[in-house]
Parts: sequence; structure tokens; C-alpha cells
Amino acid sequence: MSAAAPMNDALRALHEQWLLPGTKGLALQTPVRQSALAGHGLNVLDGRLSYPVAVLRDSTVAHNIAWMRDFVARAGALLAPHGKTTMSPQLFQAQIEAGAWAITLATVPQLQIAYRFGVRRVLLANQPVALADIESLAALLRDDPAFEAWVLVDSSAGVQRLQQMMQRIAPQRRLPVLVELGAPQGRTGVRGVDAARALAREVAAAPRLRLAGIEGYEGLWVGADREADLQRVDALLAQLLELTRHCDEERLFDGEEILLSAGGSAYFDRVAAAFASLRHSSRPLRRVLRSGCYLTSDHGFYHGLQQEMRTRHDASFRHGLQPALEVWAMVQSRPEPGLALLTLGKRDASYDIDLPRPLCWHRPGDGAPRPLREARIAKMNDQHAYLELPPEHPLQIGDLVATGISHPCTTFDKWPVLLTVDDGYRVTGAINTFF
Amino acid sequence: MSAAAPMNDALRALHEQWLLPGTKGLALQTPVRQSALAGHGLNVLDGRLSYPVAVLRDSTVAHNIAWMRDFVARAGALLAPHGKTTMSPQLFQAQIEAGAWAITLATVPQLQIAYRFGVRRVLLANQPVALADIESLAALLRDDPAFEAWVLVDSSAGVQRLQQMMQRIAPQRRLPVLVELGAPQGRTGVRGVDAARALAREVAAAPRLRLAGIEGYEGLWVGADREADLQRVDALLAQLLELTRHCDEERLFDGEEILLSAGGSAYFDRVAAAFASLRHSSRPLRRVLRSGCYLTSDHGFYHGLQQEMRTRHDASFRHGLQPALEVWAMVQSRPEPGLALLTLGKRDASYDIDLPRPLCWHRPGDGAPRPLREARIAKMNDQHAYLELPPEHPLQIGDLVATGISHPCTTFDKWPVLLTVDDGYRVTGAINTFF
Repeated sequence: MSAAAPMNDALRALHEQWLLPGTKGLALQTPVRQSALAGHGLNVLDGRLSYPVAVLRDSTVAHNIAWMRDFVARAGALLAPHGKTTMSPQLFQAQIEAGAWAITLATVPQLQIAYRFGVRRVLLANQPVALADIESLAALLRDDPAFEAWVLVDSSAGVQRLQQMMQRIAPQRRLPVLVELGAPQGRTGVRGVDAARALAREVAAAPRLRLAGIEGYEGLWVGADREADLQRVDALLAQLLELTRHCDEERLFDGEEILLSAGGSAYFDRVAAAFASLRHSSRPLRRVLRSGCYLTSDHGFYHGLQQEMRTRHDASFRHGLQPALEVWAMVQSRPEPGLALLTLGKRDASYDIDLPRPLCWHRPGDGAPRPLREARIAKMNDQHAYLELPPEHPLQIGDLVATGISHPCTTFDKWPVLLTVDDGYRVTGAINTFF
Repeated sequence: MSAAAPMNDALRALHEQWLLPGTKGLALQTPVRQSALAGHGLNVLDGRLSYPVAVLRDSTVAHNIAWMRDFVARAGALLAPHGKTTMSPQLFQAQIEAGAWAITLATVPQLQIAYRFGVRRVLLANQPVALADIESLAALLRDDPAFEAWVLVDSSAGVQRLQQMMQRIAPQRRLPVLVELGAPQGRTGVRGVDAARALAREVAAAPRLRLAGIEGYEGLWVGADREADLQRVDALLAQLLELTRHCDEERLFDGEEILLSAGGSAYFDRVAAAFASLRHSSRPLRRVLRSGCYLTSDHGFYHGLQQEMRTRHDASFRHGLQPALEVWAMVQSRPEPGLALLTLGKRDASYDIDLPRPLCWHRPGDGAPRPLREARIAKMNDQHAYLELPPEHPLQIGDLVATGISHPCTTFDKWPVLLTVDDGYRVTGAINTFF
């Protein structure tokens, strides 16, 4: 039931690749094998790297993976973590080794990257529309019997495109399809249970497709009115269950199980509870959650959502997901008493929800990192951050500032190589991303 | 006087590299050599690629390069285009072949990438502070007599770090240094002419450094009050000239010429005019502009600034810089009459200044692209854009939408491979970026 082959050649090659001078975060003068990094005695706190550097805390990543594994087990669900968050083969591998049932992806190119690095079970959480994308997917299904993929549809046009290309490229396989249910003023997905049911009938009638389940995405509602958000989340979840029951009664599902999937990183607790409430179906229900950001959490947006989640739950949530991703920058300029410029810009950290948040500062060779609560990043340019701080603050050129980010997806995509570190910020290795 | 060696091995290897399945924009099922792409008969309008796809229009890039070459020639200036905009070796090469005096870079890792691909004259438009970064730079200067680099300082701490590392690593060379003049509430740079002059004396007194010139960056002021912005720009430029004159009178400059540099993409006309007004100096003045975004311009922020620039000038600006970068997406979903979801998200196009702007739509196989003025992108998620359009609009799933972006720097960094196209959107090749 593993979603991956054992470490494949591509993943091994990544581990053994040469990192070249110019690799962000590493001040290399000559190429270094990625597998040899851990042996170089590097430490982020020493000030001997190139800054900014993005680091993943090993112990926190391990904690989050274990916590989520336990959560989905308690919930009677499976995890298909969204791979678009990290697009990192090593992290996919770690997630699969911890029992992830599949990796979720957003696009066919992302799916091809996951496949290259050994992922063999994927949930494409979108309706693929470009014929060449569908053809690429169908070709993988044709050429590799061990490869499994589920895709979404939200329209007749989508059904027809899939049917046409599967017929042409891989007529010996049927493609498992989930009908996506959306919500008014939402994103993709059929509007309303009746229209979704009609589409489910089209899928069931398409010879090269198979109605494998129902899908929705409740994570869009994260605004200022939290009560209203939760009501919309619960309404969508109720509709997903209703649609599933209708399709089941009508015997539209085909396959050994019914796949029911939703769940981003904001409300996976609510999704799990709603899914658990559906107890009667003609065949076993496979409940699949898709959180991507659980892996690293953050110090901003998702941290806040997870604090809320804790208020909804018992002790098992108390030591829940923790922020694992930090970006360390160096003070580059102190041109005015209340201003420091950091080597940290839009190329290095998320800025789509909040700007990075200073966590602590550190003077290499001078004790341990110290808190930096009294400062804030007011602005970022492409390559600079403006840190406002009290005029008397001792922060000087060459000091380090650790920042926490808000929204992992838009930080991972800025780092082809991220360093992994132990609790003392010793470099234990590196992971790669493919955006 | 060329800033690059002829096409080096790394650049040639890039041209011959295999593009793998998973390359965004190309729906590859098997690896394809980058050099062979042009022979595949691909056309963006055919709908046979994977969308989104980022494209550079060859003719427009060539026009912009030629226009800027002529502009700096008329202005008696040199161009060191900011490489951080594109971080593309092929575009660096094209800029150098068109006479760019150097490539400007923001960080030492960027500088190392430019070096890897053959750039041999660089302006590091920042004060390097991480000792390992300075060491890497000094090692290049030690190991390659053909390599030239200028760097900025804005503080004694910066001067000391440079002096210390040059002494240790490359004692046979002196590092040419520009004092950076800033402005109150600005970014980096010494505040005030007097303090900058004092720092220039420190540079002149540092045995392993050489005061080569003066630098400033006027591109920060791009707010709502355009008159106030221009006043601040002009004030900084006046101070740059004053500082240059003072340092020259004091005989602080060392070298055959005095390098005077400023100029982003918003006000390079004003910078050129101010620099031209400085006619008397003890040695020849080398006026260096650093615009990066001129190469592609855009359909948003820089387009607006260039319209303003045209109002300040004569006919030579009338056919000035044109937008060369477009991102084409596909309609993935039409869930409500007034809403289309495009395969275009924060992973694909700038969102830091404006969201992408729809330019036209096209139904593959059905005539030519048609205007789409009545639609707008209201929101983007990581992988989706919400296109609002009139309810009766015929746009359907599988149609293409071309979008223009606002701020090239934050679109280039989302594309490891961009396709180049001719005026009929036939794919002529690809370029690479290294972020």
C-alpha cells in the first residue's frame, strides 16, 4: 500500500549531486556533493554561510509528520499530503515513509516531477484541461501498471477531454475520477449537489472513466469573520456527504471503495469529523485528507489557524503542529538608528499573506540567539527587508536575524535547496525543490 | 572591453541540456534537448503545450535591447543591466553582446552564477557583509585575473570586512569600491554627503581597497505623489554629483576613471541627464546605468512609468520600451457565468504590485486571438487565477488567455525555463533562469 517505490535512481542522484557555487545560502567556492554537506561542520549560527538561508528544523518536521500520522489514524482517514506546498522529493519520500497513502499535486508537470522521483500514487486535485497534459498523464498510466492516479472533474467539457484522451492513449485502463463539488463564489467545482450528481452520471457513463469518489476543497474561507467561515466550511462538507450518499444510492460509484476527499491545512479537523459521520455506504469509504502545510506549519497564517484548531479540541491538539521553516538573514546596513536592512527579500520569503516575522537575533561568536520581539519587518524589496527596531537596539552589521514566515507554499518556491538543521542549527543535510 | 568571454562551456551545456518531463509549460513525455525545441514546431496558440507557459517575444526583447543601447550611447553612459531581474545566462549574454559594459548583481551567489556562465565584469550593487560571501568574491579575484568586480559600501563595518578579507585572500589585488549614498527614510546607503565623504576617506585609506566611484539608487520613490517622487529623485542625484565633486577635489578617487552609477528602470532618463551635467572632473567619468526591467518591460507598473518617461521626452522615446513577457494560461473551469478559473497562480506570475492583466483570449484552431478588455483577474491562489468577465462571454474550458504581468523580477523567478517565441507565437527556443 506504499505510494512510492524504494528510493529510486533519480532521488539517489539528487542526494549525490554536486552543489555549485551560487547555491543560495551556501557560500561555496567549489562544488560540494549534497550528500557530503552534513560532514562540513556547518552551523547557521556561526555566520559562515551566505545569508539569507532557508532552514528546516529536523526535529520539528519529524514531530509534525508523526503528529499528522497519528491524527489521520485516529480519524479513520488517509493522508495524501499536497505536494505543491514543498515540491520536494525528499519530503515526499519522508511523508510516504510515514504512511501517506498518496501525494496530492496541482498540475500535470508537478505530477511528472513526483513520478520522476518515485511517487507511484497521486491525486491530481484539479481538472486537467490541456490535452497535452492529459496525454502525458494517460501515457504514464499506459506505460507503468504500478502507477495510480485520481483526477477531478467539474464539467462535461472536462469529462469529454479525459474520455477522449484515455480512449486514444491508454484504452486498456479506466481513469478513476472524482467529481469536484464547489460552492457559490468559490473556486472550481460544480455548483450545487444536483448539478454535481448529473456530472457524476456523465462520468459513470464514460467508458474509459470510472467514478471513484467525490471531492471538495473547504480551505478557501479564511477571512475576518471566522464564524461565517466555519459555517461555509460545514455547509460544503454537508453537501459533500449528501452528494456521496446520492451517488452511492444511485450506484454510480465503481471500484472497491468510495474515495471521499477534502481538507486543506486550515480545517482538516472539521473535515475528518464530517467524514467520520458518514457511516453507511454500499462499499468501504476511503477518507482522504490533503493538507500540505502541516509539514512545516509556519509562524503566521497557519500558526493562527492551528491555534484556533486547538481551541476546538482536547489535549491531543495541545502539542500539535509546530513551525519548522525559518529564513535566516544578515544585517547588511544600519543607515538610521531605527532601521536595519536585512539580506532578505521577495526572492527569499513569503510576502503574499504577511511579511516575515523576526524571531530572534544573534551575533556569531557571542552567546545564544536573543529574542527580537520589539522589531518588525515593515517592507520588502526584491532583495532587502526593512527591519524597524528601537533606536537604541544594539543590532549591527553582520548580526543574524531569524525570521518566521507566513505561508510555506510561497517560501518553498523561492529555494531550490533548503538546508536541514538539528536543534543547535548544525547543518544535517539539504533537500531540493522543483518548481 | 567586453564583459564576457565568448560563449563558455557552462552556457553551451545549458543549450544542450535535456529538458525533462515536468518542465513547466512544456508537456513533455520524454526528455528533449533544449537546443532541439525550436525544431518541434510548437506554437503557443495551438493549445498543445502545458499551460501556464511564460513566453518572451523575441522581436520585442531585441527592440528593447537596441533601444536601450542607443539611449545610453546618446546619453554618454554605459549600461550594467541589473541581472537580478532575470538571472538568465542567455539574457546576460545577449545584453553583453549588445554592448553592456558589465552585469549588475544583488548578491554574491548571483554573482557566482553570472561568473559560472561567463560574465567577467560585474557590479555588485550592495555592500557584501557575510564573511563567506566576501571570501568567495575575493577568491574569484585571486584566481581569475580577467575577472573584475565593483562593490558598494555604506559603513565603516563594511569597509573593514572588505579590507580584512581582501588582505587575507587576494592581497595582490585591490578591490574597487563605490561609496553608496542613501537618503533619509530610504534603503541602504550613507545618509548625507558629509558622512559619505568621511566614509570615502576610509575607503581611500584602506590598503586593499580603492575608491573607484560613487553610487546611489533613486528607484525607491514610485508612490502616488509623482511630483514629490521626482523631487526626491532629483535631490538624490544632486547629492551624488556633489559627493563626487567633493571626493574628486579631495583626490580620494584612485584609478583611471571615476565611476558614477545610479539608475533603476523608473528614472534612468533623469539619472542620465543629471550625470551628463557633471562635466569637469580630474579624470574621465564613467557613467553607469543599471536598469534591469528595460529588457522586458511589462504591462503594468513599468509600463506606467515608461509612459510617464515618454511625456518628459522627444520622439526618441515614442517607440520606447515595449512589454516582451507574457504568461499564457488555459481556462480550467467555468463554474459560474461571470467567473473563469485560469491555470495561473502565485507560482506563475507576479502579484506583488498588481495581479496579471488579461490581454487577449484565443480558442485554439479558431482564428486569431481576440481582445479581452472587459475581463480582469480579481484574485490568485497558489495555482489558480479568478477571472471575472461578463456573464455572456463565450470563454470556455480549453480556451487560452494571455496575461501581461506587472514587475518582471517577480515573474522571472517563477520560471526555470521560459520559451522564446516569434511574432506568430511559434516557439523559437528557451532560456533558463537561476534563482
